[in-house]
Amino acid sequence: MFYHDNGKLQYTVEVEEPNPEFAKMLQQAIGGVEGEMRVALQYLFQAWALPQKHSEYRHALLETAAEELGHIEMLATAVAKNLEGAPVELRNQMGQDNAVSAAMNGMQPRQVLSSGLHAMPVDSNGVPFNGSCIVASGNLVADMYANVMAESTGRLLATRLWEMTDDDGMKDMLSYLIARDTMHQNQWLALLQDLGDPEDMFDHLPVPDSFPDEMEHQEFNYSFMSTDINEPDDPQQPWTQGESVDGEGSFSFIREQNLDGMEPDLQPPNEKAHNEVKESDD
Amino acid sequence: MFYHDNGKLQYTVEVEEPNPEFAKMLQQAIGGVEGEMRVALQYLFQAWALPQKHSEYRHALLETAAEELGHIEMLATAVAKNLEGAPVELRNQMGQDNAVSAAMNGMQPRQVLSSGLHAMPVDSNGVPFNGSCIVASGNLVADMYANVMAESTGRLLATRLWEMTDDDGMKDMLSYLIARDTMHQNQWLALLQDLGDPEDMFDHLPVPDSFPDEMEHQEFNYSFMSTDINEPDDPQQPWTQGESVDGEGSFSFIREQNLDGMEPDLQPPNEKAHNEVKESDD
Amino acid sequence: MFYHDNGKLQYTVEVEEPNPEFAKMLQQAIGGVEGEMRVALQYLFQAWALPQKHSEYRHALLETAAEELGHIEMLATAVAKNLEGAPVELRNQMGQDNAVSAAMNGMQPRQVLSSGLHAMPVDSNGVPFNGSCIVASGNLVADMYANVMAESTGRLLATRLWEMTDDDGMKDMLSYLIARDTMHQNQWLALLQDLGDPEDMFDHLPVPDSFPDEMEHQEFNYSFMSTDINEPDDPQQPWTQGESVDGEGSFSFIREQNLDGMEPDLQPPNEKAHNEVKESDD
Amino acid sequence: MFYHDNGKLQYTVEVEEPNPEFAKMLQQAIGGVEGEMRVALQYLFQAWALPQKHSEYRHALLETAAEELGHIEMLATAVAKNLEGAPVELRNQMGQDNAVSAAMNGMQPRQVLSSGLHAMPVDSNGVPFNGSCIVASGNLVADMYANVMAESTGRLLATRLWEMTDDDGMKDMLSYLIARDTMHQNQWLALLQDLGDPEDMFDHLPVPDSFPDEMEHQEFNYSFMSTDINEPDDPQQPWTQGESVDGEGSFSFIREQNLDGMEPDLQPPNEKAHNEVKESDD
Amino acid sequence: MFYHDNGKLQYTVEVEEPNPEFAKMLQQAIGGVEGEMRVALQYLFQAWALPQKHSEYRHALLETAAEELGHIEMLATAVAKNLEGAPVELRNQMGQDNAVSAAMNGMQPRQVLSSGLHAMPVDSNGVPFNGSCIVASGNLVADMYANVMAESTGRLLATRLWEMTDDDGMKDMLSYLIARDTMHQNQWLALLQDLGDPEDMFDHLPVPDSFPDEMEHQEFNYSFMSTDINEPDDPQQPWTQGESVDGEGSFSFIREQNLDGMEPDLQPPNEKAHNEVKESDD
Amino acid sequence: MFYHDNGKLQYTVEVEEPNPEFAKMLQQAIGGVEGEMRVALQYLFQAWALPQKHSEYRHALLETAAEELGHIEMLATAVAKNLEGAPVELRNQMGQDNAVSAAMNGMQPRQVLSSGLHAMPVDSNGVPFNGSCIVASGNLVADMYANVMAESTGRLLATRLWEMTDDDGMKDMLSYLIARDTMHQNQWLALLQDLGDPEDMFDHLPVPDSFPDEMEHQEFNYSFMSTDINEPDDPQQPWTQGESVDGEGSFSFIREQNLDGMEPDLQPPNEKAHNEVKESDD
Repeated sequence: MFYHDNGKLQYTVEVEEPNPEFAKMLQQAIGGVEGEMRVALQYLFQAWALPQKHSEYRHALLETAAEELGHIEMLATAVAKNLEGAPVELRNQMGQDNAVSAAMNGMQPRQVLSSGLHAMPVDSNGVPFNGSCIVASGNLVADMYANVMAESTGRLLATRLWEMTDDDGMKDMLSYLIARDTMHQNQWLALLQDLGDPEDMFDHLPVPDSFPDEMEHQEFNYSFMSTDINEPDDPQQPWTQGESVDGEGSFSFIREQNLDGMEPDLQPPNEKAHNEVKESDD
Repeated sequence: MFYHDNGKLQYTVEVEEPNPEFAKMLQQAIGGVEGEMRVALQYLFQAWALPQKHSEYRHALLETAAEELGHIEMLATAVAKNLEGAPVELRNQMGQDNAVSAAMNGMQPRQVLSSGLHAMPVDSNGVPFNGSCIVASGNLVADMYANVMAESTGRLLATRLWEMTDDDGMKDMLSYLIARDTMHQNQWLALLQDLGDPEDMFDHLPVPDSFPDEMEHQEFNYSFMSTDINEPDDPQQPWTQGESVDGEGSFSFIREQNLDGMEPDLQPPNEKAHNEVKESDD
Repeated sequence: MFYHDNGKLQYTVEVEEPNPEFAKMLQQAIGGVEGEMRVALQYLFQAWALPQKHSEYRHALLETAAEELGHIEMLATAVAKNLEGAPVELRNQMGQDNAVSAAMNGMQPRQVLSSGLHAMPVDSNGVPFNGSCIVASGNLVADMYANVMAESTGRLLATRLWEMTDDDGMKDMLSYLIARDTMHQNQWLALLQDLGDPEDMFDHLPVPDSFPDEMEHQEFNYSFMSTDINEPDDPQQPWTQGESVDGEGSFSFIREQNLDGMEPDLQPPNEKAHNEVKESDD
Repeated sequence: MFYHDNGKLQYTVEVEEPNPEFAKMLQQAIGGVEGEMRVALQYLFQAWALPQKHSEYRHALLETAAEELGHIEMLATAVAKNLEGAPVELRNQMGQDNAVSAAMNGMQPRQVLSSGLHAMPVDSNGVPFNGSCIVASGNLVADMYANVMAESTGRLLATRLWEMTDDDGMKDMLSYLIARDTMHQNQWLALLQDLGDPEDMFDHLPVPDSFPDEMEHQEFNYSFMSTDINEPDDPQQPWTQGESVDGEGSFSFIREQNLDGMEPDLQPPNEKAHNEVKESDD
Repeated sequence: MFYHDNGKLQYTVEVEEPNPEFAKMLQQAIGGVEGEMRVALQYLFQAWALPQKHSEYRHALLETAAEELGHIEMLATAVAKNLEGAPVELRNQMGQDNAVSAAMNGMQPRQVLSSGLHAMPVDSNGVPFNGSCIVASGNLVADMYANVMAESTGRLLATRLWEMTDDDGMKDMLSYLIARDTMHQNQWLALLQDLGDPEDMFDHLPVPDSFPDEMEHQEFNYSFMSTDINEPDDPQQPWTQGESVDGEGSFSFIREQNLDGMEPDLQPPNEKAHNEVKESDD
Repeated sequence: MFYHDNGKLQYTVEVEEPNPEFAKMLQQAIGGVEGEMRVALQYLFQAWALPQKHSEYRHALLETAAEELGHIEMLATAVAKNLEGAPVELRNQMGQDNAVSAAMNGMQPRQVLSSGLHAMPVDSNGVPFNGSCIVASGNLVADMYANVMAESTGRLLATRLWEMTDDDGMKDMLSYLIARDTMHQNQWLALLQDLGDPEDMFDHLPVPDSFPDEMEHQEFNYSFMSTDINEPDDPQQPWTQGESVDGEGSFSFIREQNLDGMEPDLQPPNEKAHNEVKESDD
């Protein structure tokens, strides 16, 4: 179960000079696919899927999930502060070129109309958060790669926001969040390492490693397949030759032109489906 | 630009005994978040964002993107074949318990009603494919972690489908797709390795590595933050002590209880937003 | 069944000076979650779920549903008029600072590109209307609370739009719509009152009132649960003490810290799900 | 900021006999529009929008938000337990009528394929949770009506789930959740009462009450508008006569047939929009 | 503005024997992309975009839009009647194979849980209606093709539903709807013919016909482009030779292999975007 | 299966002067409902549904699908080039009116934050591409109308983009795409003609033509139904009189007022659904 601390944020959030356009940009870190709602919920659902015998992983996930909820809170505070003093009136002359209308142009309409100048569960383009990208596969190795990815795109987003503003308060808050993303990238990789042989970073590959090797087509599992119409030679890249990263095979180079799958041979479906193609089908 | 080969599939697709419920399940591998539409489009958008001086990576991405388009084709063929002979009529007595109604119960309604017994761009729950989970961040390291994740959840899905069926044709097709996912996990990791110092697998961390280290809060970037209300001791896990995976710091253990962010101090917004809270506000 | 009156709008719509940015804002009242498409469809689906013996409620809902269709029509007219004369050309110099480009900046792209300068079934952020928020629960009390809420956020939106413009025509149209929302808030509350004992406004609580009281956990149904980590004292608010609003209990104050649910004890799932957590699981 | 208690759930969750179809149904209470993800996030965003001078309301919202997070956790546990032992294999003969295939028919495909037999952030139809229905308007009265509605449809859902199962563990968990929804309906109404004059339950109407009365069209704000083509007489219902619920007017009855809005008079748009209607327009 | 007739449906709806699975299937005709919500709203938005001088088209669209609203009403009635007597209880034994559980398996969960056994604004897969597919382009020719398409897929859906049921009431209702779709296909084509030269059915092509011919690349506007890797010969189909349908050119056959677009030459973006590709980029 | 040609685009893409606002507009042609992702996928799914005996149609669809993939590539290149040199920093003073902030105002936030100044699978409003509008019905006539519509709205979009820019490179690229849309409109109509009697353009009507005529209600299948409350006379339009376009009937004019469907007579549902309407219902 969950608790909160009314009295304080996880880290102080100050805005020197409100900027409603930056309020829009910050929404990406709240409701965007790279944002905090996604990671908070992802870690919760991953935790809730773990069997009791792996409570150390369940705990690690819950610890960080609760931290991320606090990040959403920080960002929501930052959005509200950037909207303080924002204009709520349009000038009636089309294209009248002044400070107020320029500010309005850069704002997110629903941050005025739907929330009364506060944060919303949407991204910077204004699209509502949705749960379709949350990864909680039941397989912890797959989940950890999803987490490293989420923290990588999350930190990338935070650095882009940091570059975008010259407000000291916002830069400070983002420096904190960037640091936390550094940690989270590292901790999930450490957990990933712990899932296999700690001496062999990629012992857990291929994901899922529980599938019997002999059941996959052995002639295709380490071959780079070229689909280039020009039939180029092996480019001799690290992914076309040498030992595979999982240590279980050797990369090779093949061409799609040499494959020989059959032509699809679909039958016409039930006539009650009324799929007639040509008049004369009926 | 793109070409196709009308005459053949990438790998032969045969169905021994059509099973319309399996047709529904296969949709996850077409239009699901772990499916082939997602990876094909993800690799395309990643490729199209690369500057000319990195054409070796652009080429690698396009090679595999075109391969994945062929996987959608294989799966769409498999869906259509599993729907051959499927019932398109309901029995009128509610709950009448027989083979036909059981088959109907397990089918995806729109595979009958909208497509006339063929594949659709939807997942196994029947939800349309959408592009919101496609990752093409402009940062190739972040993108590669997204690709490893996508191939991990993709291979996991394929193994679950393999376990679900006992049709030899379907098992054979899935063994092929599983093998390709093994390769793709390996190749993106090889490419990831190539992006930094090949001798140091995690030289590219933290993502993005171009952000100046001194600009992140140094006291928070390698600390595991416990949010447990019970204030437990350091569990001495690989993510709370020892060298960090990126080799740039040492893990430590801190408690959220010791943080000291301010209380949020929002001002009431513009009265024209009509955000009155209490009668007496106005 | 439904009819229309080609000849006239429900209320005259005039725009003194077209403003394409206001055209964007008005979209929220058409396709937004607080908008007219939502209420029109919500009242229709609620009406269509009512059994014949309650035709007075069915009629009341259909009456207002048809009225709301006319509001969408008014707003669509207002959007088209605000877009008359809007620019459809960009200036080619990036950041060129003039009236036309400022106007373009504030427009909704699809109002030009997809609709040729007319209204669309989208909200002010540009997100398509969707039916997921429509409430037609089959329980008329729950539905009426949904309607009061919809008319409350709808009227709030209309007042924000009223404040945003200084166009006399638009202000007049919005004054009409604001008045109708006043009525609709009142009428759904009157209907709510009619559903229980008219002398006791909250006789219909808790929703659904048909569930047997003794089947809910009696020790938890009027207790405010504090989840504050600091274990504060009862704040003695109207929701922590005194008679409950439904007149069936007394508010009290409890702390989550005193609860004692078990630890989750999940079992590892079927191995064919390939949920291996650790290498050694297999 | 937020904390969790690893050791225990808010209330014990036991399943006597796992039922994978009920696991699907429970998803509605997690990721559905009437579910716990929606209320948890709704209360958080409402809290984060409140100015400091109204911290008693901010606190009340955060208290309950944290409680709701614990409800998601309980339900996720219930889903996983109902899926223990669920089949992960299809029988290959179409329509083969037996217990296993019947069970499979009733399962949610992605609960097997995407999550490995665990809870997901989706509803019972399998549609991902999305934030579009979250109401945090900045106006606390509107928000409270949204909360009463959410708890009403939430409690209705919980009673339907209670009726659907005869598993004692599930019935007990639902009795707890039903009790909490009773409390939450009451507490938000108590808070609503506190926002106006406590002696006058509807002192806060119409929402928003801060908009000047004289600015709305006085002849339309308490009139029930009949849109019935048959021009019936006033049905003399509580919403067509008598004092209005907000105490500021008297209900009356009017007919749409008597309204007299102009005919829409749109001009043809810019020819560069290529909206030609007829060949001869160009 | 709009009216309704409480007393009657457009056409009588009777269900001989309720079938909850058919209730699910009928949802496609309500909230599906081929359904009545889409066409009703599409015709409304098209009508509302027409300038006054084309009121004959505006009227035709409004006439049919109002008719379609009545079709939603008929289908909603049919759904409710098919759900009369439907089971609302699960049997607790997994896979217990009997009539009730088979019926439950085939039902749409939210038709029980969210609507209390009534129609919803969702499709047969359970996905909420959304406005993204509504076409109201501002160009009436494009709109008419969208309408012919909508009525074609709509009639196809209705015939599939007709084949699916053997309930006389449902077959009768569907025969009515099928007839109306026949009419609507014809009427939009008649309107399309009226938009150009009535003697020349395709005088209005290419859409939009107002774009100056000389501004399109003349060497590409009537050439069928083969993208087949095998470089086949011209198949001499009606789309590779002979006069074009619009009467303005002659079909020819070209191969993509002969095209000669440049290689994309993207520059590395602003370093503040942190798009580093390789370590050595920084 | 599919191939690509790394070395070149289908047609050269040059941008004389980058314009980040035009980059936003171009997104509509990539991820919008009128865009290239939709048609590419639509043609693929249509092709994959065709039985072997109609391979000439399967081939035609695959040919053009592969071409459309190349159009997405061209547009993605155009987006990236229009974003070269775009600002990635906000000025901190709200409403500061200068070239940089004006440029920023007009940009799509996620083109900076999520993709690092490149194309995304979203539309010009910023909404992610989704597959819900893809039509692949299994009935080739219905599909062809969908294709003509898609190419009509697609060409309309391209002409609007052409008008919007004065960049010679962009105008040239769009002239190419406009020409291809001219061809595609024509080729799908030619194919449509080939599906019936080539001498009778509308021999394939009504869609689906395989449904037995006598099974539709003959009195309603060629009648224009007026729903106008004013009961106007037959307007004597081409859709109210004369031979129907399909040549199988004669248009007539009827009024909804003369229809006589029954009143809906729904029964109260199962009390376990807790749909109580009035207190006294229970």
